[in-house]
Amino acid sequence: MPGKVAPAPRGPYKTGIQRREQIVQAALTVFGERGFAGGSIRTIAERVGVSHATLLQHFGSKEALLMAVLEEWDRRTVETGLSGVEGLEYFRRLPLVMSGHLANPGLLGLFITMAAEASNPAHPAHAFIRHRYDRNLTTLAGHLRQAADTGEAASLTPARIDTEVRIVTAVLDGIGLQWLNDPSTDIVQAVATFIDRTIADWRRH
Amino acid sequence: MPGKVAPAPRGPYKTGIQRREQIVQAALTVFGERGFAGGSIRTIAERVGVSHATLLQHFGSKEALLMAVLEEWDRRTVETGLSGVEGLEYFRRLPLVMSGHLANPGLLGLFITMAAEASNPAHPAHAFIRHRYDRNLTTLAGHLRQAADTGEAASLTPARIDTEVRIVTAVLDGIGLQWLNDPSTDIVQAVATFIDRTIADWRRH
Repeated sequence: MPGKVAPAPRGPYKTGIQRREQIVQAALTVFGERGFAGGSIRTIAERVGVSHATLLQHFGSKEALLMAVLEEWDRRTVETGLSGVEGLEYFRRLPLVMSGHLANPGLLGLFITMAAEASNPAHPAHAFIRHRYDRNLTTLAGHLRQAADTGEAASLTPARIDTEVRIVTAVLDGIGLQWLNDPSTDIVQAVATFIDRTIADWRRH
Repeated sequence: MPGKVAPAPRGPYKTGIQRREQIVQAALTVFGERGFAGGSIRTIAERVGVSHATLLQHFGSKEALLMAVLEEWDRRTVETGLSGVEGLEYFRRLPLVMSGHLANPGLLGLFITMAAEASNPAHPAHAFIRHRYDRNLTTLAGHLRQAADTGEAASLTPARIDTEVRIVTAVLDGIGLQWLNDPSTDIVQAVATFIDRTIADWRRH
């Protein structure tokens, strides 16, 4: 029913939304490159071509801008092509997820930089990062447990599953950190080699 | 020959050395917790109980203080109990190296935070971190090549050796990052599980 479709925003309202998106995109890049402490509102405003005051009109504070960036990052990284994928297949897709990062280096840089900075409980992204780790580990553990339950993988104790998903997460984060420092790092090859060996071992155990 | 031993420094000179060491130690902690951009000279000076001006008298600039911190970190992490260890035994010792980090969480925090921040070429630690990665990868590759040459491990192509040592480095860095955010992470168990599987595969290939 076309009558129910909301009209596309236009005029000043549309401009406001676009401006907001531009600011979030610039902030994502600047925080990813320099961290929250090192990335200044001034630098972000300059990249968008607005004044310091205009930027704060949209977000109120640097902390609120960071939260908007993290929500945007969360939204984008959910679209990784892993929805509906289960069991060991979830792990087999991880090299593909890494190759997706290559198209969006800023997102990976943002996560690694935030994860390193935000271990400090006073950091505004501290709770977000902790929650993100917990959620990722829970998701990975669910898929590995499912693989063990269906016989796709051999039986693994809950403690072993916890260790295994922490190792997988470490490889993904650690290879991202290497790649930030040395863009010649072949992150897809590294993750593929690691995952192939690990799945072979899970099936064999 | 006792006559050749330099006398222990004393008086104002000794005080100056001690003060310098105190400043480096405080800076190591503050930069590790907050990064270079987020860790202020003021905070470091307050922790030592000296003025901002006194601190700058010792080091001249924040960048020079960071360099002193990185040199200290380099010096300490060389003493990891890996000297004289060769081939696969080098990799078998890595869980022990991780347990050493548990006693010095500030050093690991400093490395991860710097590695994340310093991917920006304008960061004062950029060259240091790149060099550190290159040196580590070269060392690990040398040990794995030696293991392959002596028959301790199966034959591996140079490209495969490069991929393998990047994976090992990713696990060490990535598990450190997880541990900074969640100190309940058992980094020794994770590295031991990873290394056992990896070495078994290297021998089998």
